[in-house]
Amino acid sequence: MISPAIVLVQPQLGENIGKTARAMLNFGLTDLRLVAPRDGWPNPTAGPAASGADQVLDQAKVFDTVAEAIADCHRVYATTVRTRDMAKAVVTPRQAASEVSILQQNSQQAAFLFGREASGLSNDDVAHAHKIVTAPVNPSFGSLNLAQAVILVAYELFQFDDPTPAELTAHPEGLATSEEIEGLHQHLSAELAARGYFRSEDRAANQKRTLRNLVLNADFSSQEVQTLRGIIKSLVREKR
Amino acid sequence: MISPAIVLVQPQLGENIGKTARAMLNFGLTDLRLVAPRDGWPNPTAGPAASGADQVLDQAKVFDTVAEAIADCHRVYATTVRTRDMAKAVVTPRQAASEVSILQQNSQQAAFLFGREASGLSNDDVAHAHKIVTAPVNPSFGSLNLAQAVILVAYELFQFDDPTPAELTAHPEGLATSEEIEGLHQHLSAELAARGYFRSEDRAANQKRTLRNLVLNADFSSQEVQTLRGIIKSLVREKR
Repeated sequence: MISPAIVLVQPQLGENIGKTARAMLNFGLTDLRLVAPRDGWPNPTAGPAASGADQVLDQAKVFDTVAEAIADCHRVYATTVRTRDMAKAVVTPRQAASEVSILQQNSQQAAFLFGREASGLSNDDVAHAHKIVTAPVNPSFGSLNLAQAVILVAYELFQFDDPTPAELTAHPEGLATSEEIEGLHQHLSAELAARGYFRSEDRAANQKRTLRNLVLNADFSSQEVQTLRGIIKSLVREKR
Repeated sequence: MISPAIVLVQPQLGENIGKTARAMLNFGLTDLRLVAPRDGWPNPTAGPAASGADQVLDQAKVFDTVAEAIADCHRVYATTVRTRDMAKAVVTPRQAASEVSILQQNSQQAAFLFGREASGLSNDDVAHAHKIVTAPVNPSFGSLNLAQAVILVAYELFQFDDPTPAELTAHPEGLATSEEIEGLHQHLSAELAARGYFRSEDRAANQKRTLRNLVLNADFSSQEVQTLRGIIKSLVREKR
């Protein structure tokens, strides 16, 4: 699987290059490309900020121009904070991730351009891209720094084909069966009936329905049903 | 609309509280709650790190315990890096965001617990939560700091009901109609035919189909079709 390239255009601080490497590796990205980094390369302040993502920094490639950095790429995205008045489609990071997923299946190389810390990408930089990527943010407070912008794109790229289920059940050992829940319900009702909990015939049906919903909606595991039946047995004992 | 609460449990550095505020406000979250911040509150190092998200810091509420911080909340999520051996459902940030969206429609307050920078949430902290949230990351390099974990959750919460279209067309002024594309195709074919581009009857049909695909697949705007027809007219002129 081809890893999408993260291209930093004229990054200023080595620390931000290190943070970018860390953001990338968290989401399995390793292809870091630097276009004319202001303070040269390698940069001694990058390593400590990478927090262990040194492999990304060690493999980073340096280029003089954006054109050289993306020469082998089939699809280039320019990340911008605000929409430009340019004849290019503007996509969300999620949409870009979905497109890149398809590109990867066809062995096509994608690249994401990120601009300078202070000023972002120039219009000439953006002109190298097929599409613009802009993350929807609070319209009255859009303040993502370089590594944060990278992490959102990297996160979306990683999530897209990630097989993690949206929800893992709390009870891997097994939810209770309907029979177990019914057993709990009957046990509880019988002990309550013996103690005058159900006031009248009229109300008993309603009260029992309430109890059944109570034990059913809680999604208890088999183990929890056993625990609850033990609790009921303890509660009905005489105090020592 | 009730804003989900971000609860930092015993945060250590004021700088990280500031970064959290910045991450929150980028995605429209304003309800910051601090449980026993190590260096007290307010903390002078928080403000500069918030990069303008001071309103979140100014409104932050301080509590002695997790229980007090979440007392008014209907649904509590504990964010953890690794799965705990605990009988709780584990959801992705995206799934949590989808659940919170429903809670908000029912005016229910949700909260997300985030742990100490060094050690995360304790098992006792997690026991206060209904579910665990874990962001899928690179299994061989999971290294998200506090503010990065907050930004991913905040990002997902904001995206969930955000109306931004996944893709905005590159040509808001209008894509070319089929008639305009056909006009371009005929214009180009006629000028090429007059210059012997189509070698034989046999191949001409195939070559013309290639040309039609070329001009059709490019998704030109009306304006671009006009530009291209001007280019063709210029190219067929004699050199001065």
